[in-house]
Amino acid sequence: MADARPSDRPYLVGLVGNGVTPSLTPPMHMAEAQALGIPYVYRPIDLTALGLSPDTIGDVLHWAEHLGFDALNITHPCKRLVLDYLDRVDPVAAALGAVNTVLLTPEGRVGFNTDTTGFAAGFVTGLPDAATDRVVQLGAGGAGSAVADALLRIGVGRLTIVDVDARRAAELAADLGGRHGGERVVAGALPDLSTLLDAADGVVHCTPTGMAEHPGIPFSAQLLRPELWVADIVYRPFETELLRAARAVGARTLDGGRMAVFQAVDAFALITGVHPDPDRMSAHFHTLVGADHEILTR
Amino acid sequence: MADARPSDRPYLVGLVGNGVTPSLTPPMHMAEAQALGIPYVYRPIDLTALGLSPDTIGDVLHWAEHLGFDALNITHPCKRLVLDYLDRVDPVAAALGAVNTVLLTPEGRVGFNTDTTGFAAGFVTGLPDAATDRVVQLGAGGAGSAVADALLRIGVGRLTIVDVDARRAAELAADLGGRHGGERVVAGALPDLSTLLDAADGVVHCTPTGMAEHPGIPFSAQLLRPELWVADIVYRPFETELLRAARAVGARTLDGGRMAVFQAVDAFALITGVHPDPDRMSAHFHTLVGADHEILTR
Repeated sequence: MADARPSDRPYLVGLVGNGVTPSLTPPMHMAEAQALGIPYVYRPIDLTALGLSPDTIGDVLHWAEHLGFDALNITHPCKRLVLDYLDRVDPVAAALGAVNTVLLTPEGRVGFNTDTTGFAAGFVTGLPDAATDRVVQLGAGGAGSAVADALLRIGVGRLTIVDVDARRAAELAADLGGRHGGERVVAGALPDLSTLLDAADGVVHCTPTGMAEHPGIPFSAQLLRPELWVADIVYRPFETELLRAARAVGARTLDGGRMAVFQAVDAFALITGVHPDPDRMSAHFHTLVGADHEILTR
Repeated sequence: MADARPSDRPYLVGLVGNGVTPSLTPPMHMAEAQALGIPYVYRPIDLTALGLSPDTIGDVLHWAEHLGFDALNITHPCKRLVLDYLDRVDPVAAALGAVNTVLLTPEGRVGFNTDTTGFAAGFVTGLPDAATDRVVQLGAGGAGSAVADALLRIGVGRLTIVDVDARRAAELAADLGGRHGGERVVAGALPDLSTLLDAADGVVHCTPTGMAEHPGIPFSAQLLRPELWVADIVYRPFETELLRAARAVGARTLDGGRMAVFQAVDAFALITGVHPDPDRMSAHFHTLVGADHEILTR
C-alpha cells in the first residue's frame, strides 16, 4: 500500500455508522498521523445525522471510492451488512462475519476486523502472563463475538460464554466451536455464573452495563477475588463499577480503553502501512476521554 | 465560516470535472495550507476516470456533503450544470451563469466564480497601470466569458470580442452588454483583427492555441508591437509562442499561470476564510509546472 501511493498524497478516511459524530476514533487517528508527519483527514459519516438507512452502506462505499477515500472504518449497525459489498475479506474477519475496516484500493475493497485483533493486542500487552486456562465471558453480542474469537486465538484453554439470552450464547459458542474446536468453547447458564467464576482464571465483560447510560455492575462484586483477573470492554468511563470493585479486592484488571485504542492502532497500520505508537495513541485517547493516562505495559 | 468550525477540524475539498486527475490546483491548495499550518486535503474527482456523466454533478454534491467535504471546485463540463443544485449563488457568478467554487455549508450550498475574480486579480497585479481604453479579446468560450466579464468589471473602456465562431462572439457580447452597457462591448470580425489590434491598448488570448496539445500562435506575430500588451490564459507552457513573440517586440505580457494561481488564491480564501500568500502559491505552482518562478509584481 504505502509504496503504491504518491508520497505526498494525504490520507482520507471515514467512520460510517449510526451516531458516530462524537466518536473519538477520528481525532485519535488524526493526532497520531500528525505526530508521525502524515497528512491525514478522518471524517465521521453519521448515518443517523444524515438520515441514511444502514442499507445504504453499499452506496456509501461506492461514493467514498469516487470521492477519493482511502479507507473506511465501519461500526454499528453496518459491520455485517458491509460484507456484501467487498471484493476480499481477511480470513479472521470472514470467520467472524463482521468487518470494521475497509481498505479502498485500486485492486478493490478489502475488509478486516480490528476489533478482534485490537482486543487480542490489548489483552496480550495489558495483562501479560495472565492465566488463560479457563475464562468466562459475559455477553454474546457483536462486540462479544469479536472478543471471544480473539480470546480463542490467543490461546484461552476453555471459554465459557454466558448471556441473558441463553440462545445467543449457545449460537455464538457453536459458531466459535466450529472454528476453534468444540471442546474449547461452551455456553454457560447465567444462574451458574457464581460456580463458573469460582473455577475461572479470569472474566471478560462484554455487555453495556457500566456505561454512563447503563450504570451499575454486571454481577455481584462478591464473586470477585484477587486471583480472578477482570477485563471490561466498556471505556466510558474507564473505571467502571466492575473494575473499581475488582481493584478493591486486589485483582488485575484490563480497561476497555485498551481495545478502543488497539482497534485504532491496527486500523491505522492497515491504512497507512505505518505502525503507530500505541502509547502515544493511548495517551491521546485518554486526553480525549478526559481521564488520566495509564501508560501501557508492553 | 472560519469561526463556525472546530479549530482542529481539517478541511476537505474536491475538484470535480472531466480529466482533472493531473490538475495542479489540488497540490497548489495543499502546499499553501501546509505553509499556513492548516490541515487540508484536496482530492481530484475525475468524472472521466470514474466513468461518470457530467449530469451526475448533483449526486456528486449530495455525496460530497454526506461524506464531509467542505467545498468543491467545479470545472469543465459542469460549471453551468452545477447551478441547478445550489441554494445560493454569488451575484458575479450568477451573472456569468457559471460556478467554479461551491461551499458546502450547514446553511446550504453557495456558488462562486473565482475564474473571473482570479483573472481580474491577476490582471491588476500583473499588468499594473496598463492602458485599458480599448481591448481586444480572442476567444468567446467558457474561459473567455469569465475573462471578458472580469475585463469589464475592472474598467476596460471598450472590449471587442472576436471568435472563429462569429455567432458565439456576438452572443457573448450581447450578454455582457446587457450587464455592463452595450457601448462597452461589441463583437468583432476575425478578418478585421489586424485593424482592431492596430487601434487597441492590449489583447487577451482565450483560445486553446499554444497549449502543448494545440501548438502554434493564434494570430500573426506581425500584428504585435511594443505598445500592445498581450495577456494569454494558456499556461502550459507558461511561455507560449504568442507571449514569446510579444516579448521579442518589447511588449508587456501577462501569462496564463497568473489566472490559474489567482483562481486558487480566491477559492482558498473563500473555503478557509484565510487569505493565502499569492507569491507563495505562484512559486509552488511554477515549481509544479516545472517552470521558473516569476515573482509577482504587487
